[in-house]
Amino acid sequence: MKLASLRNGTRDGRLVVVSRDLTRALDATYVAATMRAAIDDWAVAEPGLRALAATLEDGSADGAFAFDPSQALAPLPRSHQFVDASAFLNHGDIMERAYDLAIKKTPGMCILVPRQGDDFRGPRDDYEFPTAEDQCDFEGEFAVITDDVPMGATPKEALTHVKLVTILNDVSMRKHLFREISLGFGLVMAKPATIFAPVAVTPDELGEAWHDGRVLLDMQVHRNGEPFGHPNGRGMDWSFGELLAQLAYNRRLGAGMVLGSGTVSDRDYRNVGSACLAERRALEKLDSGESVTPFMQYGESLQFEVFGLDGQSVFGAIDTRLVPATPANA
Amino acid sequence: MKLASLRNGTRDGRLVVVSRDLTRALDATYVAATMRAAIDDWAVAEPGLRALAATLEDGSADGAFAFDPSQALAPLPRSHQFVDASAFLNHGDIMERAYDLAIKKTPGMCILVPRQGDDFRGPRDDYEFPTAEDQCDFEGEFAVITDDVPMGATPKEALTHVKLVTILNDVSMRKHLFREISLGFGLVMAKPATIFAPVAVTPDELGEAWHDGRVLLDMQVHRNGEPFGHPNGRGMDWSFGELLAQLAYNRRLGAGMVLGSGTVSDRDYRNVGSACLAERRALEKLDSGESVTPFMQYGESLQFEVFGLDGQSVFGAIDTRLVPATPANA
Repeated sequence: MKLASLRNGTRDGRLVVVSRDLTRALDATYVAATMRAAIDDWAVAEPGLRALAATLEDGSADGAFAFDPSQALAPLPRSHQFVDASAFLNHGDIMERAYDLAIKKTPGMCILVPRQGDDFRGPRDDYEFPTAEDQCDFEGEFAVITDDVPMGATPKEALTHVKLVTILNDVSMRKHLFREISLGFGLVMAKPATIFAPVAVTPDELGEAWHDGRVLLDMQVHRNGEPFGHPNGRGMDWSFGELLAQLAYNRRLGAGMVLGSGTVSDRDYRNVGSACLAERRALEKLDSGESVTPFMQYGESLQFEVFGLDGQSVFGAIDTRLVPATPANA
Repeated sequence: MKLASLRNGTRDGRLVVVSRDLTRALDATYVAATMRAAIDDWAVAEPGLRALAATLEDGSADGAFAFDPSQALAPLPRSHQFVDASAFLNHGDIMERAYDLAIKKTPGMCILVPRQGDDFRGPRDDYEFPTAEDQCDFEGEFAVITDDVPMGATPKEALTHVKLVTILNDVSMRKHLFREISLGFGLVMAKPATIFAPVAVTPDELGEAWHDGRVLLDMQVHRNGEPFGHPNGRGMDWSFGELLAQLAYNRRLGAGMVLGSGTVSDRDYRNVGSACLAERRALEKLDSGESVTPFMQYGESLQFEVFGLDGQSVFGAIDTRLVPATPANA
């Protein structure tokens, strides 16, 4: 099942079921008015939503309409908990080598980064930021959305609470990153609003590509329509279940929590490239002593998409143009 | 105007207006079903809520009932953005001196700590955590709740978006704090769920004690009913407007964002004490070389309350008992 939230003038949009091929949608508001309502009460909402999805696939749906991703908000437009992991150690290793960082990791524990869920962006919204001097970068990531996860959940138990999977672009302002890491209290200016794919899908939509709490698919990244990288999710060093369990050590995770994987990073980076500029720049520095790939400028655009084992786009494409922040669009 | 969210079996509770003396309440759901609905559309909701509050004060209210703080959720039970500042430099200075920390602060910028808003706790809920070995501490703080703050807002502009003020106990697990600070990506295990007062109030309820974006009142802290400290909010080194503007540098702040002041800390600590154990323990270490005040144990309780210029309790009391986490209460 694939779900999206379409613009309707409200903060949370209206919930629709989307066809597997992403061409058609069906209003789902009589089952759950919003994705928030659905995930708050997933066990009640899921059967009705799946019934709608079935009618959309078999052609019996009444009132289906063309799905327009430019009308999509983030699948869950706001969340009360958003945490971004750094679960691809390959990425951190490259960064540490290139910049002589000595990140004081705790053995066995993944880096988890508390973030904010009040301003998730839709896949085709222009993305405004105050100055290109902040060294605008992107990070292509897999993400999951859960229902309630109890305190102390095991990885296996936590994984059963993963109800939806999607992708995101974790926009990053590199100028502020090392300063905020060395300060030590978390990432604020380095990590403004996050951009989501048009659609979130139940794990079964991934088929065998959803394995051991990981998405075994390529993250296709394009910059201005040109291929940039396509690292695979199989190299994730912690599963989403393990990450959720670490997070739930002394807290309950409320329904609708969004957990990002961290930038997808592939040990075969020589052949497949990276899902963020920082990693490519770090590899350039390691190879030649100098980073040459420039950070993002206003007017550039970024595309992220993942294709399933059947060759179809799973989540739809993120396609974002970067623009200056002005009073009008802030 | 004073507002609270009462238990009704839903995640967000039902909105009520509470009398100035905190003895009576009036259902407000026909104006806004929840605090979330009210803050999402504050300009529309506020006049109706104020009209209800007026009838409660002048005795003409129909259907008023006794206000029971044990039935209160947090005033805003869930938030899409919760950030905790460290705006009382006196606290940080004491901690840095006692523990030879060299926090790499940026001149002029306050430490802002991204937190999570999915599990705010009501004022009288038992508070469960997995082990007292985590060195359970508390922090008494002032907090504000805003409507939408645009990206790039000035301090003056940001302050106009403060719609409500309340207090919170920022529960802290000290065993994890220095490890997470030296890791550098934010506070997770060190900062589990946060506890709120029963009531949030519009700034005008504070009268002249709301001044220059600060609350000039004592934070009364009791441990097991015994006085622990009563530092005053006037020593806040950044106003709430300045903190919001710093945060809004490259992000929009969504309605219902909650911003904590950081633990209230008073340069007159010899006479007024502290609002957290860590600060008292640091002062003990500086004075005698040894911290003697123990961290919190299961079965202990904590009280936080603030009295206005008229001597009345402004927000009602936080009064929380600490209990072990068990599968039943997780």
